[in-house]
Amino acid sequence: MELDGVYQSIQEDLARVKEYLRSIVRVDFPWLSQQLDYVVGGGGKGIRPALTLLSGKFYQYNLEHLLPMAASVELMHTATLIHDDAIDKSASRRGRATIYNLWGTEPAVLLGDYLFAKAGEFVAETKCPRVIKLFSQTLATISSGELNQFFSAYNLKQTREQYFKKISGKTASLFCLATESGAVLSGAPEKSVKMLRDYGYHLGIAFQIVDDILDFIGTEEELGKPVGSDLAQGTLTLPAMLLMERYPEDNPVKQRFENKEDHDNIQQAIELIRNSPIVDECYAVASEYSARACQNLKGLPENSIREALLGLAEYVVARKK
Amino acid sequence: MELDGVYQSIQEDLARVKEYLRSIVRVDFPWLSQQLDYVVGGGGKGIRPALTLLSGKFYQYNLEHLLPMAASVELMHTATLIHDDAIDKSASRRGRATIYNLWGTEPAVLLGDYLFAKAGEFVAETKCPRVIKLFSQTLATISSGELNQFFSAYNLKQTREQYFKKISGKTASLFCLATESGAVLSGAPEKSVKMLRDYGYHLGIAFQIVDDILDFIGTEEELGKPVGSDLAQGTLTLPAMLLMERYPEDNPVKQRFENKEDHDNIQQAIELIRNSPIVDECYAVASEYSARACQNLKGLPENSIREALLGLAEYVVARKK
Repeated sequence: MELDGVYQSIQEDLARVKEYLRSIVRVDFPWLSQQLDYVVGGGGKGIRPALTLLSGKFYQYNLEHLLPMAASVELMHTATLIHDDAIDKSASRRGRATIYNLWGTEPAVLLGDYLFAKAGEFVAETKCPRVIKLFSQTLATISSGELNQFFSAYNLKQTREQYFKKISGKTASLFCLATESGAVLSGAPEKSVKMLRDYGYHLGIAFQIVDDILDFIGTEEELGKPVGSDLAQGTLTLPAMLLMERYPEDNPVKQRFENKEDHDNIQQAIELIRNSPIVDECYAVASEYSARACQNLKGLPENSIREALLGLAEYVVARKK
Repeated sequence: MELDGVYQSIQEDLARVKEYLRSIVRVDFPWLSQQLDYVVGGGGKGIRPALTLLSGKFYQYNLEHLLPMAASVELMHTATLIHDDAIDKSASRRGRATIYNLWGTEPAVLLGDYLFAKAGEFVAETKCPRVIKLFSQTLATISSGELNQFFSAYNLKQTREQYFKKISGKTASLFCLATESGAVLSGAPEKSVKMLRDYGYHLGIAFQIVDDILDFIGTEEELGKPVGSDLAQGTLTLPAMLLMERYPEDNPVKQRFENKEDHDNIQQAIELIRNSPIVDECYAVASEYSARACQNLKGLPENSIREALLGLAEYVVARKK
């Protein structure tokens, strides 16, 4: 299923979320306004706010609260990306120069802080203590997940369990927030809240595994950033782990992590992974998580919204960027 | 008045705030726990949480909500300092190595994010939408204030109005949050909320002016960081502005800003300011704000709490560190 199909029932409301986000550009300081304008003009796929809106559509679709919540989720995501880019010294994302690249580390840190604050203001608009608390807990999980990634960089001795813990913290947690908050704000019964949260969790894991695959098999144009960025930053992902399992004695990942200056190894790792069953093996794991996400939806009303969420689970694995 | 006297009526509860803060050290990741242990062991003066507790003592002193609020205010302060130190590349603060110095920029950014999140979790414990929203608005004000400072670094053409706007954003806003939230959470009538907020605002301005004076006239031991740090970072503060007004043609501040490599100018500026009426002039401005802070308390009940707040306004100007 294409994203257009998934988004069909919420197209107009997603546009409203974008408008809501654009409201942050109106500030006193011209340079801040300029930066914010650049930030909200970035145009991601909008999966997270879509998850909030769709999860909020099974029961009372209360746009007054779902709108700021969806905007909040998207803004928190944007803020973490801005900090990540500053930390990883990334030059480009989604085909555009990063804030770090344009203005440097310091403004990137402060602009990220500012966006966390605005995301906090948005979530406060829901006036719902439960999702407000969830919002902060998620931010804590994401930043400790990122710290975890930072401190395990260039460490070859990482288990699959550690990998899943890492991507759970840095990606799946925000997917959970997106779905759970939508469910809570629409007055869903606890059983349904849990189903949608679990759907979000498994979808988030699948999403990140595919991200990690695409980092090896995508093109720079599709990715909007250089191929092999994870290895370049010393981040061990599932494809690289499988490569190491396959060639335990000597492999370009090991060489790369032991000699950070040697960039040839990244290209070798990309080639080896592309020309091996590793890609298929990783996709099998992603598909398994996507299927588990779908299983969680079984107890929900059989309607077009459920169809859209099932379609999204399919899209997340099939996407090329 | 000494701080001990000011804190007399809230001594035990301030200790509880510290305990509350220490609870964040218990986390899964050993390195994160180690960093958090270092962070909460820093020991500031605790003025901000004291302001929340004292402001909450005029009406219903509801510790169940005031405790997490006071901890939240202190934690937000800590998080902003950690980001500031990373941005300014500061080696020491309060006589100890900064997180940036110990672990580098990246962990400092992520740890700051983590603490913002924990502060958000704490404020959510109050279950009060008004202070939750205030919390996020304050963080937005602080980070845009810091951005303002960053983008105006090494700019000699700054007006006093701009200076006050800057310190209002980066310091007074958090003092306001501390007092206003305490008042709101104790069910104070709106008139009293306004009085306490305005007290917090003027106290914050006085506090920052004195900080800016001490940066020139203190000793490294008292300050816990090098003397003249502001000039070293290209930040124009009130004493430096008055120096420039006094010697418009040529002065070490101008020289410093025009030639960042020349560190002799910082020493010259320190000497010139110390041996001129500039220090007294700056203290006069700080005292004026401190007095205005006190005026705002006139409508509040005449009790020992009000005395403590009046004493704090006195302390803020008289303090040597």
